[in-house]
Amino acid sequence: MEDKAQIQEAIKIQGEVVRKLKSEKASKEQIDEEVAKLLELKAQLGDDGKTQFVLKTPKGTRDYNPKQMAIREKVFNTIIRCFKRHGAETIDTPVFELKETLTGKYGEDSKLIYDLKDQGGELLSLRYDLTVPFARYLAMNKITNIKRYHIAKVYRRDNPAMTRGRYREFYQCDFDIAGQYDAMIPDAECLKIVHEILNELDLGDFRIKVNDRRILDGMFAVCGVPDDKFRTICSTVDKLDKMSWEDVKKEMVNEKGLSEEAADQIGEYVSMQGGMDLAERLLQDHKMSQSKQACAGLSDIKLLFKYLQLFHVTDKVVFDLSLARGLDYYTGVIYEAVLTQAGTVSAANEAQNDTNAEESVSVGSVAGGGRYDGLVGMFDPKGRRVPCVGVSIGIERIFSIMEQKAEASPEKVRTTEVQIMVASAQKNLLEERLQLISELWNAGIKAELMYKKNPKLLSQLQYCEEAGIPLVAILGEQELKDGVVKLRVVATREEVDISRADLISEIKRRTEA
Amino acid sequence: MEDKAQIQEAIKIQGEVVRKLKSEKASKEQIDEEVAKLLELKAQLGDDGKTQFVLKTPKGTRDYNPKQMAIREKVFNTIIRCFKRHGAETIDTPVFELKETLTGKYGEDSKLIYDLKDQGGELLSLRYDLTVPFARYLAMNKITNIKRYHIAKVYRRDNPAMTRGRYREFYQCDFDIAGQYDAMIPDAECLKIVHEILNELDLGDFRIKVNDRRILDGMFAVCGVPDDKFRTICSTVDKLDKMSWEDVKKEMVNEKGLSEEAADQIGEYVSMQGGMDLAERLLQDHKMSQSKQACAGLSDIKLLFKYLQLFHVTDKVVFDLSLARGLDYYTGVIYEAVLTQAGTVSAANEAQNDTNAEESVSVGSVAGGGRYDGLVGMFDPKGRRVPCVGVSIGIERIFSIMEQKAEASPEKVRTTEVQIMVASAQKNLLEERLQLISELWNAGIKAELMYKKNPKLLSQLQYCEEAGIPLVAILGEQELKDGVVKLRVVATREEVDISRADLISEIKRRTEA
Repeated sequence: MEDKAQIQEAIKIQGEVVRKLKSEKASKEQIDEEVAKLLELKAQLGDDGKTQFVLKTPKGTRDYNPKQMAIREKVFNTIIRCFKRHGAETIDTPVFELKETLTGKYGEDSKLIYDLKDQGGELLSLRYDLTVPFARYLAMNKITNIKRYHIAKVYRRDNPAMTRGRYREFYQCDFDIAGQYDAMIPDAECLKIVHEILNELDLGDFRIKVNDRRILDGMFAVCGVPDDKFRTICSTVDKLDKMSWEDVKKEMVNEKGLSEEAADQIGEYVSMQGGMDLAERLLQDHKMSQSKQACAGLSDIKLLFKYLQLFHVTDKVVFDLSLARGLDYYTGVIYEAVLTQAGTVSAANEAQNDTNAEESVSVGSVAGGGRYDGLVGMFDPKGRRVPCVGVSIGIERIFSIMEQKAEASPEKVRTTEVQIMVASAQKNLLEERLQLISELWNAGIKAELMYKKNPKLLSQLQYCEEAGIPLVAILGEQELKDGVVKLRVVATREEVDISRADLISEIKRRTEA
Repeated sequence: MEDKAQIQEAIKIQGEVVRKLKSEKASKEQIDEEVAKLLELKAQLGDDGKTQFVLKTPKGTRDYNPKQMAIREKVFNTIIRCFKRHGAETIDTPVFELKETLTGKYGEDSKLIYDLKDQGGELLSLRYDLTVPFARYLAMNKITNIKRYHIAKVYRRDNPAMTRGRYREFYQCDFDIAGQYDAMIPDAECLKIVHEILNELDLGDFRIKVNDRRILDGMFAVCGVPDDKFRTICSTVDKLDKMSWEDVKKEMVNEKGLSEEAADQIGEYVSMQGGMDLAERLLQDHKMSQSKQACAGLSDIKLLFKYLQLFHVTDKVVFDLSLARGLDYYTGVIYEAVLTQAGTVSAANEAQNDTNAEESVSVGSVAGGGRYDGLVGMFDPKGRRVPCVGVSIGIERIFSIMEQKAEASPEKVRTTEVQIMVASAQKNLLEERLQLISELWNAGIKAELMYKKNPKLLSQLQYCEEAGIPLVAILGEQELKDGVVKLRVVATREEVDISRADLISEIKRRTEA
């Protein structure tokens, strides 16, 4: 399709060339030559260039069809129900921000920001994530505590890998707690939320890795990494879920100029995984214990595990020193949920080519987040800090998995919730159908009729089968005379006469699930 | 704020001037002069220019705070419930389209389209409405019948009037039926939907005006309007809800060169309002009856009224020959719902300055639509027609009205649905609170706790009052010993001990509404 767009563009330009020559009364020879080029381009299109434009969505984007929307709605409902259960409010922000609001927040990835054309007025960019607009919102409204979720589309001029669920326009689904609170209580709630959502969505077994930026920084310090290399070495550690330790070490030593000894020491630490016990052991570790930062992080990990035990979720949580996460702005605990089952092969393939640390940090990553206590202060004129901790649900990957599951399931995805079709068995009963369906709508019943004066009964019944409508109210002359409606159950073909007076309660009784 | 942005921009430029002079080792005099200008600009900002950027949303846009979101959610739920009751599916399309997809669809208003910056690749524009993307979707997927709704934001570089609810980023809320069906059946359903939604939202009394583009065209023909002036005269007629007949006539005669006689004849027709009877009378009208087009339209209006009678909605519907609607693409029946009550004064004021025919066609317009049988064919390479009829709910105006109502109401808008707060009466009970709240969350109960180790009971109770949380589960040492929880009703301050085993069912019993 991309090629077709290029040809279309070439046709447009060539068309202008021809028009210009004609208007300039150029020689017939010259005109003919350019017209020939134009025809050749049109021939390449295959349809004689009759199409005025290419019928497609922009690169890296897609329409959602009704079936995809039905799945999307189901996933959103599960997630929103969880956020609401935890008392979250919701906000919304514009799809674009002042360009300068986004400047300096995304490091190298800034090149992926979509800018709007300068049509006079402010310079604007499409939002790149929901976290920076959230921080801008807090600073602008001087809000110091809030628990909010925000589900909306964000935009990245990334290399799309659409078959693997990666788009230039995609949803983010964020839950954050802002405010000065006692240590690890909101952090533990974020992990409880991830646990609840992944359980409820039934995506298969999962694991939630946790670590702390202060532990990583302390570890780098005691291993002899120079201060100014913390962030870049951290980025390299972050690749451990996609690269072997050997390759990571090579990058540290060869590309980033770390000593082999320091790299080996890091290598020892980042291979460690465990629970509260590991945190306790590292607090005793003769090297790690030299870093105040690391000790603060380790104590918080211990506290976090204590709270997670009370939430009964420690079975899925692992303290993993190799977890680093891509974004610069994390300042404390970080975490990431991964699906551990087979069946996430496609996700694994994707991760291989992935350069986007935030969206698909590891094989089957479906949620991630952490504490970022400094971001809001970047927006506040007086630099006031608003500590924040949050989690982002990897909703696009979850959509893909749910779509694959729906595809594999024998059960059909219904795209409407229609309970009953109002049908007629004979001709000339449109008015009676309209009257009846109006009664049903007014009673809150989801009902459809065919937009034909005299539809065949068979085609009405077939429509119900296809659309999964469970009931049919059939009107015929006899039924009208008797003051009844023939109620047909589509699945069993059972039919029973119901009096008009009882119809609504009978439909409700039969369709309440 | 807009001024502030301009000053910021000027400061930036002036800063560059100074830097350039310094780097060029310009004279001290020259540099001092430019520095003085810079300081003056910074002084205008009032905060010594310390702010690195202006904390604002782009012009014509806004954030939605939790309270606005709660109202928005309520309105959306009502509307979506109605669309689903009528068996509609939903789709979604990208926020931007290929620029050429939008080209040639909006006439003069094309200048209001937001373009994206050319960063290499395709030329893109933000969607201007949901109808053109819908038509593109149908043509691209060769869909010949669908009943769908689409609720999403659209973008127009219009002059914002935000205090009056007009934005550059705003929601549209469209329901459309595409397909070749028998006359007026889907059209009547669209009007039934408008009736249901406006009733259910309880916005006060309303009227739905209907007309037909074929009646307008036929009327123009029999009044002697030249063929090539139909559309422009139609646009002038469309202004009748904002301008007096005298002014409309002046525009027709002086600006558009219509004969006075023709204008007067049009004036006679467009003053007519009625019901099915008026359609019948006009079918007998010696002039109107000469136009085949007008007769086709009038017969359909008659049929429409017949169906609307069966739906019991004719009390709100009026056949109004002055209704013209702005958009070019309508081909048959058109309609528009207006609020007729006082209290829509602000909306009336807005209409005075309104140049945007689609969004606020008349005083208090809250819905509009019509039949557009040609639009999909514009996208189909073979020009295949897919007849469509649809309605757009003026959701932004409805938000404004609902917000005003909420503002005026003594009842507080709740921004969360939390049923219970888990509180403690003594110190050192955080772990017990965490354990209990986890049980409640797992049972599907919406619960919050304060993120403090030792919050005061009073501040916990105050929080409930402010947030409208109806119940508190209070833990104390005595309660823990007795295996009970003290359940407090916030409104009445009544307290009762409930055994841990009964707690969940008791909360559910007390909070189910």
